[in-house]
Amino acid sequence: MSTIDRDAPVAIHAQLSDRFRRNITQGEWPPHYRLKSEPELARECGVSRGTLRRALHTLIAEGLLRQVRGRGTFVTSTVIEPAIAQKLSTLTEDFARAGVVTETEVLACELIAPLKPVAALLDLAPGAQVLRLARLRRTEQGPVALLHNYVRADIAPGIEQRDFVTLSLFGVLEDEYALRIGNARRTFSAEPASGEIAAALGLEPGAPVQYLQQVTYLADDRPVEYSDVWIHSGRLRVTSLLSRR
Amino acid sequence: MSTIDRDAPVAIHAQLSDRFRRNITQGEWPPHYRLKSEPELARECGVSRGTLRRALHTLIAEGLLRQVRGRGTFVTSTVIEPAIAQKLSTLTEDFARAGVVTETEVLACELIAPLKPVAALLDLAPGAQVLRLARLRRTEQGPVALLHNYVRADIAPGIEQRDFVTLSLFGVLEDEYALRIGNARRTFSAEPASGEIAAALGLEPGAPVQYLQQVTYLADDRPVEYSDVWIHSGRLRVTSLLSRR
Repeated sequence: MSTIDRDAPVAIHAQLSDRFRRNITQGEWPPHYRLKSEPELARECGVSRGTLRRALHTLIAEGLLRQVRGRGTFVTSTVIEPAIAQKLSTLTEDFARAGVVTETEVLACELIAPLKPVAALLDLAPGAQVLRLARLRRTEQGPVALLHNYVRADIAPGIEQRDFVTLSLFGVLEDEYALRIGNARRTFSAEPASGEIAAALGLEPGAPVQYLQQVTYLADDRPVEYSDVWIHSGRLRVTSLLSRR
Repeated sequence: MSTIDRDAPVAIHAQLSDRFRRNITQGEWPPHYRLKSEPELARECGVSRGTLRRALHTLIAEGLLRQVRGRGTFVTSTVIEPAIAQKLSTLTEDFARAGVVTETEVLACELIAPLKPVAALLDLAPGAQVLRLARLRRTEQGPVALLHNYVRADIAPGIEQRDFVTLSLFGVLEDEYALRIGNARRTFSAEPASGEIAAALGLEPGAPVQYLQQVTYLADDRPVEYSDVWIHSGRLRVTSLLSRR
């Protein structure tokens, strides 16, 4: 590391935060990098712990670092990283937990007769209807995810009248219909964006898009929901924290 | 469903398995579809349970259906679906568990000085070396995954002399070096295949490829391994079985 210039007109903590910022932007400290402990880093930089903390706080305020109680200080990721590979939470729930502000546009909310594969996965009798819910999620950066959900209308009658601009799908099923959501199977693949998906997410047609397919089951084992989700990988990265045992 | 022809020269169980096979290949019964219970299905088809079972067993033998104790009979997926989004298992372990035969080609197994971002994520001092392990995994269908692992050589000295054609990386770390692997952070994104990745996986350059990035930590919290993994989504689909609570 370059040394601190004690005679420079710039305060030492500011020199330090400049240097750390460079480390981050130039990739020497990549996303998720855990900084050394404060005593170690202060010693290495030849500054007091108070000065080091001031420098760190500047970068925390800028959103470049974050502190995790008991684990240390980490470089923030530049993309949103919901843990939807790991927990059966919804994007809405993950965004809320992470403090990410999203806007939801409801593109479709209507009862339809589903295609045969969807009807089969949802255990539906011929002629039975589903809620087709199509939503686009946006953050400040632009559209991040297009969601197509198909929900059994016999299990949740009247669900097409709910306002999914403000409500989450699982929230409605659990709170308004008192359904117990049990588990889900999610698969992840990289697919070329179709014209429709590309237009919705602001990608070139054929550009790679992260595709998730899901079937959700109630606690009593009845399938309740099928979904197709397309994610803009440049803006949102699916994350999983996994334990070996 | 079409009716069974009791006067046809084809046995009833064979007519039934033909019909089910058509349901599967034509998408009416998609991958992961759970068939109705045996009594229900037998009644619906107008056959005895014995005849139904014979038809089901034909399709189980063909690999189109699989039975899960206590849960029922399901349509098999046409792609391999390891649960690596869910558990900290390795592709090798998941393949072995699923009975998928894979072949491993070791493209590189050598000590190198890592790039700065990798060194940072692995908490390495300047000049410290890592094992660079590059492997290509193939199934009968062709290449399914290209894996680039970087392993701290100071934690596992001599690891570059191991034979990774037959051994798994986690297996070596756990069994030969008695290391306790704790947890990992995995991120998933859809990326365009670079020329090198495309050539290895048999894709067109720029075609979508499922990209996984991972940092693995030991139980004592030291980072031990960083990896880049590229997956051919048409041949292998990452799966996660998630519980709500």
